[in-house]
Amino acid sequence: MRALVWDGAQARVVRDAPQPELLEGTALVRVRLAGICSTDLQILAGYMGFRGTLGHEFVGEVAAGPDELRGQRVVGEINFACRRCATCASGRTRHCPARTVLGILGADGAFAEIVRLPVVNLHRLPDRISDQQAVFVEPLAAAYQGAEQTTSLRGARSAVIGAGKLGLLIAQVLAARGDRVTLVCREEAARDRLVARFATVMQRLGIEAAATRGVGRAFDLVVEATGDPAGFALAVELVRPEGAILLKSTIAGQHTLDVAPLVINEIRVLGSRCGPFAPAIQALAEESVSVSPLIDAELPLSAAIEAIRRAGAPGALKVLLDPRA
Amino acid sequence: MRALVWDGAQARVVRDAPQPELLEGTALVRVRLAGICSTDLQILAGYMGFRGTLGHEFVGEVAAGPDELRGQRVVGEINFACRRCATCASGRTRHCPARTVLGILGADGAFAEIVRLPVVNLHRLPDRISDQQAVFVEPLAAAYQGAEQTTSLRGARSAVIGAGKLGLLIAQVLAARGDRVTLVCREEAARDRLVARFATVMQRLGIEAAATRGVGRAFDLVVEATGDPAGFALAVELVRPEGAILLKSTIAGQHTLDVAPLVINEIRVLGSRCGPFAPAIQALAEESVSVSPLIDAELPLSAAIEAIRRAGAPGALKVLLDPRA
Repeated sequence: MRALVWDGAQARVVRDAPQPELLEGTALVRVRLAGICSTDLQILAGYMGFRGTLGHEFVGEVAAGPDELRGQRVVGEINFACRRCATCASGRTRHCPARTVLGILGADGAFAEIVRLPVVNLHRLPDRISDQQAVFVEPLAAAYQGAEQTTSLRGARSAVIGAGKLGLLIAQVLAARGDRVTLVCREEAARDRLVARFATVMQRLGIEAAATRGVGRAFDLVVEATGDPAGFALAVELVRPEGAILLKSTIAGQHTLDVAPLVINEIRVLGSRCGPFAPAIQALAEESVSVSPLIDAELPLSAAIEAIRRAGAPGALKVLLDPRA
Repeated sequence: MRALVWDGAQARVVRDAPQPELLEGTALVRVRLAGICSTDLQILAGYMGFRGTLGHEFVGEVAAGPDELRGQRVVGEINFACRRCATCASGRTRHCPARTVLGILGADGAFAEIVRLPVVNLHRLPDRISDQQAVFVEPLAAAYQGAEQTTSLRGARSAVIGAGKLGLLIAQVLAARGDRVTLVCREEAARDRLVARFATVMQRLGIEAAATRGVGRAFDLVVEATGDPAGFALAVELVRPEGAILLKSTIAGQHTLDVAPLVINEIRVLGSRCGPFAPAIQALAEESVSVSPLIDAELPLSAAIEAIRRAGAPGALKVLLDPRA
């Protein structure tokens, strides 16, 4: 089958990738559409030391597996837990130390015609969610995780630093729950482009946009979603005493941070990764969050190398891959 | 009057320090006993750029002020808020941006015969709390702040890194609320000294001691109280996914940290500084926390330079100063 394979040195579209075998407790899913995430670009820069088929944001239909799922349109949670260890027994299956992670750690991903997932990881989709929307369930779930970790701040004055794909989802999720949200861009030109492109969404949800230079201070909650170590220092500047910083960027490597303000101002720093699929699916079904304006392009999997190039361009948002073409 | 004054280059005991004037809303307190804190030692190394009379842990009796307080034995909260700004209006007076801080920031401290504090900062003491115990109200309040920031983890498997003055208080506060506490020392020799000195307290509260090399992993809560940047990296190693790190060390300067594990393991990092006096006073009155074993020495204020030297020696715990002598 066709797949985008990373061998640690080169990413290539191959036509002869072996189709995954159906194992007990798993299903084979025929991928209808997949999305390129910043994590994929980081893997291509060496993050996680992954080798294999990339891709963890997808929608597809079950080709083989339990009878009741066959032919159903599904999305899938990306952490494959052992479900036997103490961490799994405590309910923290997303943090299973023996886990594999779809397209990120020890498990072939969804930039392929067929992908294999544990059945327990699959979620059926309502018909009214399009394939284009469904690809956003996984990153939107990550946005909802941030909201769940900060429920005590519902209605807060919140700043989201980094108006990329994840930042735009988190800003909407926080605004939809009642926060007064400011999206913070590094440059005024970027702020102007953002306002032009997302005017409707931002107006509907009351989201403001600001450049770093003009932004206020003393936010109750600051979301760091820049993917850049400098974002953390800015977050510390913007947050009020006893406020919270939600860390969404998985930045590899060591970074130099000033820890003293965290202690003196009693800041909470909340690391945040993957999240719950149910509220993400519901939000897309109700259209309380808009994802279509985030799509830059849709390309066939055969053009994946070009798609990755586009996804990595400055200011690029979501690029989709269609493995059927 | 006698006072220990720091001029930015030298700490000296002077005999001619001017006695503070009684201003509206303040009281003058005749200091009975004061304690040397690690923050004092850091100030002598340049922290906060403070100049003036040091000292923020004390007990004394009111010499001038409101009639109902005169002659009363009191302790005092160290943050002097403006009580007019938006931060104060929100109830976060300890974080008032215009605050002064006793012996730390813009306000002369308690290593003196007389100290001035706002009346609202004073707390009367029950007779059954001795002067020696009362000096610990301020650091014990800081320990209770850590407990209040982690109430959802009551009963947790907790590790306290750093068996210094603050670490020993926090370990007791967490154990008294029901946590299963392990005190972590860097070296096995330090662990053995700790066990020898605090056997009774540790046995009563069920606190275990461990050297870094032999300590377990996957703690629900890890308290970083080493005053050393290396303590943070160890805390990240010891905490479980979705666990919390309570940051108690005010380490000045920039430090290199690996941020990725915080995000991947969804760790909460909670900066923690000063705390509520009421539970600290109650704990000392009930003797649910033992502070007497933490006292290394009590010296007259006239011997303050020697006392500071002793307080800064490796493994030293609390050194008290008596300004009446």
